[in-house]
Amino acid sequence: MQFPSKLVEEAVNEFSKLPGIGKKTALRLVLHLLKQKPIFTSQLTHALDKVRTNILYCQICHALSDTEICSICQSTKRNPSIICVVADSIDMLAIENTGQYNGVYHILGGVISPINGVSPEDLFIDSLINRIDDSSIKEVVIALNATMESDTTAFYISRQLSQKDVNISMIARGVPIGNELEYTDQVTLGRSIAGRVKFEN
Amino acid sequence: MQFPSKLVEEAVNEFSKLPGIGKKTALRLVLHLLKQKPIFTSQLTHALDKVRTNILYCQICHALSDTEICSICQSTKRNPSIICVVADSIDMLAIENTGQYNGVYHILGGVISPINGVSPEDLFIDSLINRIDDSSIKEVVIALNATMESDTTAFYISRQLSQKDVNISMIARGVPIGNELEYTDQVTLGRSIAGRVKFEN
Repeated sequence: MQFPSKLVEEAVNEFSKLPGIGKKTALRLVLHLLKQKPIFTSQLTHALDKVRTNILYCQICHALSDTEICSICQSTKRNPSIICVVADSIDMLAIENTGQYNGVYHILGGVISPINGVSPEDLFIDSLINRIDDSSIKEVVIALNATMESDTTAFYISRQLSQKDVNISMIARGVPIGNELEYTDQVTLGRSIAGRVKFEN
Repeated sequence: MQFPSKLVEEAVNEFSKLPGIGKKTALRLVLHLLKQKPIFTSQLTHALDKVRTNILYCQICHALSDTEICSICQSTKRNPSIICVVADSIDMLAIENTGQYNGVYHILGGVISPINGVSPEDLFIDSLINRIDDSSIKEVVIALNATMESDTTAFYISRQLSQKDVNISMIARGVPIGNELEYTDQVTLGRSIAGRVKFEN
């Protein structure tokens, strides 16, 4: 792609380094910025610079935070005896937005992945074990993606915790709400039959 | 959507003001930036600030440019007697990337659109007429989108130029290359029959 201006080209190149943004989309975004008032761009760049420079990670649960201890770990309204273990902050946000969980979190920072060179030592698994040793945790809810690597990680964590006096649970997997059986993939449907639960009414 | 951090929330809000970027995509982009080294973000914001602050518009054709006269208007390799009239810089780029055009351009800055409050005076139509008066332009190629408003604009320009000694042409419209007649929409196919051209071999 040819560009009429080196400045535009540089901005497009930087934008298109972001995931899911190709050169064409990047160009459209840059041209959009150029059509708006300069303050529109400076507000965007200021917010990005600020978040990148000032963001902290909670010293307890490793979630993104503005303070050294995040608002959830600080909150007296949350139940500190249940820890939900997630791979990333985005998963924590997804669970928070359901409004169905009132415990605290622990962010692993990824999952075990030998292909990508991520070993257990690279994740916050030790600090999870320390949290369990140090405080009165009753339940650990493992909420990882439904992938092979996540399953490996869940297995590893459950093994590490097997000697501790905590219940380990896992988020339910099965047919998504609103889905039709006919269109549910074989693996999911098969697992939902194998993992059937007691009917409650 | 709830956010663990005000900083993240602000960055997401700013990102999601861009066209085609919703809150979820914005959050994914911000979390991506946070996973990269700080220089990754500063390179992006620096490039955006630089393009927004320093971009110029060519004084002849109104294209985006790093200099007061753009590289195409300056070039001695281009044919200055053909002007291609486009709505926006992005259309100029699309035509440039075909490699099929060797003339110069004129960017209108939009199309006539009473609904959006864009009248002919808001566009660079006067400066197009001045260019034709001042120099030896032989042909004006109108290359606007295939929409009602663009057609109105093309009609308006052609009326304004009717007294001038220039040929006015329009980019060809019809069945796209590679398309099958069966799947071409009725309007396009109808127009391509009505506007059939002499078979050349």
